Amino acid sequence: MKQERDTVSKRNVIQAAIQLFNTKGYNGTSVRDIANKAGVNVSLISYYFNGKKGLAEFLMTTFLEGYVNELEKVHKLLEKKSAKACLVEALQAIMTYQHQNRQLARFVHREITFDSVLVREIMTTYLSKEKFYLSKIFEAGFSRKEFRPQSIDYIVMQLRGMLSMPFLQPQYILEVHHIKPNETYFIERYTKQLLQWVDLYICGDLKVVKQKPFVMNG
Amino acid sequence: MKQERDTVSKRNVIQAAIQLFNTKGYNGTSVRDIANKAGVNVSLISYYFNGKKGLAEFLMTTFLEGYVNELEKVHKLLEKKSAKACLVEALQAIMTYQHQNRQLARFVHREITFDSVLVREIMTTYLSKEKFYLSKIFEAGFSRKEFRPQSIDYIVMQLRGMLSMPFLQPQYILEVHHIKPNETYFIERYTKQLLQWVDLYICGDLKVVKQKPFVMNG
Repeated sequence: MKQERDTVSKRNVIQAAIQLFNTKGYNGTSVRDIANKAGVNVSLISYYFNGKKGLAEFLMTTFLEGYVNELEKVHKLLEKKSAKACLVEALQAIMTYQHQNRQLARFVHREITFDSVLVREIMTTYLSKEKFYLSKIFEAGFSRKEFRPQSIDYIVMQLRGMLSMPFLQPQYILEVHHIKPNETYFIERYTKQLLQWVDLYICGDLKVVKQKPFVMNG
Repeated sequence: MKQERDTVSKRNVIQAAIQLFNTKGYNGTSVRDIANKAGVNVSLISYYFNGKKGLAEFLMTTFLEGYVNELEKVHKLLEKKSAKACLVEALQAIMTYQHQNRQLARFVHREITFDSVLVREIMTTYLSKEKFYLSKIFEAGFSRKEFRPQSIDYIVMQLRGMLSMPFLQPQYILEVHHIKPNETYFIERYTKQLLQWVDLYICGDLKVVKQKPFVMNG
């Protein structure tokens, strides 16, 4: 009974924190704000997470562990699948994972835009792993002659920009494009475009364009 | 003499604000922090900018006016140049402009990741103009049969992700890829990759791949 109550209040703290960080920013949010919103005593946040910094670390670590885990799973498939099939699976897995954790994704992606020591270590650890797994897929694609040879660093950067955009800029998508960024439909459509990028930009495969004509504004 | 002193302290306030917003966040920075860092009396910030909110609005408006201005200039060239040439010029102009104002670019791009009413109006105004000018270039490309037909909304979103990435995530680029994001070399190399995206993804032109082989890690 006590344990159940603990789980509920812990979850309330997490949800309150993510929501506040996404509206007032990490630095603009106090532990008291989080406790008030979660409806718990402020001391519980120290007890569970060792304060605001610990809570932010917990959120980032949890998100990034799941994120890297998705890539690790796909990376293991390289032995039996084509590099292109693995890249496609990786992009689909990352987009689905982020969509399922979209509020958290927004917080984490935003945090790395700061010049802050708070997250530098966590970021470097996990994002180096992200680069590692993506590199393995690209290297396989180059050596198997499935992908056009190019710089892995620059392609990973370009890809990161495209993968994080829908979660970083949901308000822009809603206000300027009048598309609902939280709808599964949107994520599927955006992912489809990423897969066309794989065909055309990564593989340089023009057959795709000729076989499946695109629909304007579709 | 007085006017000159005014200009200097105004510039100091602007530089201090951008730097603080990029380390402690907008909400984590007080007017007093800015005044201290700029070495001016706190009342000057009210006098010049009508407070912190007015200062943030000034920064965003200044950045976005210049940004949209670059696109407007290129858009006018559509009468005498190909859509592809215009798109290439637009991407180069945006990257150069952002590079020249990279600290400010980081602040502005980050602000639109918040669920905040503070910037919604400014953002919608300017980013709708950005979409308008880019749409005109894409529409010309479709009707002149230079570009593969596709959804303008989705292509603008993808492009925005790629264009903002180097300015939003400089620390990631430095720590994970060991590339200095503030070097002109980096911006040129990143832009070159965007132009290959225009060739392959937007135009579907595979000749480029064959004519100019890519250099691994080059």
